Amino acid sequence: MGEIVFVGLGLHDEKGISLRGLEEVRTADSVFIELYTSLLPDFSTTRLEKDGKIVLEAAKKGKAVFLVPGDPLIATTHVALRIEAEKHGLKTRIIHGASILSAAIGLSGLHSYKFGKSVTIPFKETPSETPNRVVAQNKKLGLHTLCLLDVRAEEDRYMSINEALETLLATERKKKDQRITKKILAVGIARAGSPNPAVKADSIEKLCIYDFGKPPHTLIFPGTLHFMEAEALISLAKAPKNIEKMVK
Amino acid sequence: MGEIVFVGLGLHDEKGISLRGLEEVRTADSVFIELYTSLLPDFSTTRLEKDGKIVLEAAKKGKAVFLVPGDPLIATTHVALRIEAEKHGLKTRIIHGASILSAAIGLSGLHSYKFGKSVTIPFKETPSETPNRVVAQNKKLGLHTLCLLDVRAEEDRYMSINEALETLLATERKKKDQRITKKILAVGIARAGSPNPAVKADSIEKLCIYDFGKPPHTLIFPGTLHFMEAEALISLAKAPKNIEKMVK
Repeated sequence: MGEIVFVGLGLHDEKGISLRGLEEVRTADSVFIELYTSLLPDFSTTRLEKDGKIVLEAAKKGKAVFLVPGDPLIATTHVALRIEAEKHGLKTRIIHGASILSAAIGLSGLHSYKFGKSVTIPFKETPSETPNRVVAQNKKLGLHTLCLLDVRAEEDRYMSINEALETLLATERKKKDQRITKKILAVGIARAGSPNPAVKADSIEKLCIYDFGKPPHTLIFPGTLHFMEAEALISLAKAPKNIEKMVK
Repeated sequence: MGEIVFVGLGLHDEKGISLRGLEEVRTADSVFIELYTSLLPDFSTTRLEKDGKIVLEAAKKGKAVFLVPGDPLIATTHVALRIEAEKHGLKTRIIHGASILSAAIGLSGLHSYKFGKSVTIPFKETPSETPNRVVAQNKKLGLHTLCLLDVRAEEDRYMSINEALETLLATERKKKDQRITKKILAVGIARAGSPNPAVKADSIEKLCIYDFGKPPHTLIFPGTLHFMEAEALISLAKAPKNIEKMVK
């Protein structure tokens, strides 16, 4: 009986894989690559379910390696495949890779233990109040919020920071308790893990017209700032000097 | 003028580095390795400050690569070094690596966006109510808590899951609003990223006497469980079948 090894591709391109991951690929009986979920931890498609069956069948005959962007078991759909494999009596292993979840924190210079619940901002065709509510709740507790932006890799469609901010502001206008205003601080991060990431901290208003370049994009809404975090944002994310006044 | 490239070593051993990271090492003028912070994002030592100066000096003469366990800019002390380097007019870049922050989530099968603030549990010589407060606050919001366990790498001392749970229970006994009881569910994770990780979900009482083997260890306190999360814990972390009753 065989096994499935979930191997994380890390960030950006084929060089994000670890040496351990590469070793698994080289000794595999079959190798599959999954490119739909990209950066979205809660993404799920029927397409992937179909692919999952193919991987399961291959694993019954030997060692199947399943290559997944980022850290491989963050998407719920891969967890489901792993459970399914175990039910079939297959062994499963994970070779971890760099994830946007920690990469974005590292690039921002903010303290990791001050991040609260994270959230995905959906495209405006499927509006949701959840992101606004999560940011507000974290802010109330003084915590930072990591926002992943919607992706439809099959349509080659990636939400930009500008789009995400406008969606959030539009939703906020309909709310009574408005916490997300044009004046508050946000941190935009583009192309984490690539040779040319962009990291810029400023008011939402300013970030709305800032050109972050190519996707993928990520957003952070800081809560209260430790002085070292303020210093990091000024030094590493070109934040305005009056940054502490912008966080409410 | 030179640069510092912070390269993540990922998890477990030398095979956790990415191909991109290895390329940076091969083209470096000088290479440094940092092994003190290990898994602790908020660790800081005067020792590292001294080492930081050596890296800075080397970077003035060319490309210095600084190898750091996990994802390299999670520890605040590395962020401080990065800011210092930029002040000296040096360029800095990050090559990300797998981090315990996402690896533990992936191994547990829990949903990443349901994690609240994370926390470090300190050794009992330096007791703190913070971990108990963070777990309680997250639970109130239905969120999971990732707990990193204290490390003193220089003394080769790593906190075990058993020790962490006993510390938490001891602190809880002094509190009025007791949320962490022997009956609640926790998930212990040992050796994430190694070929033989251990993942076990059960009541605190049971985990206190479970043998997780060698370090490093990590703990998760689940909040409310989606049925898929409950299924994942039963299938992947050998949780008892009555798991949903254990989460309060």
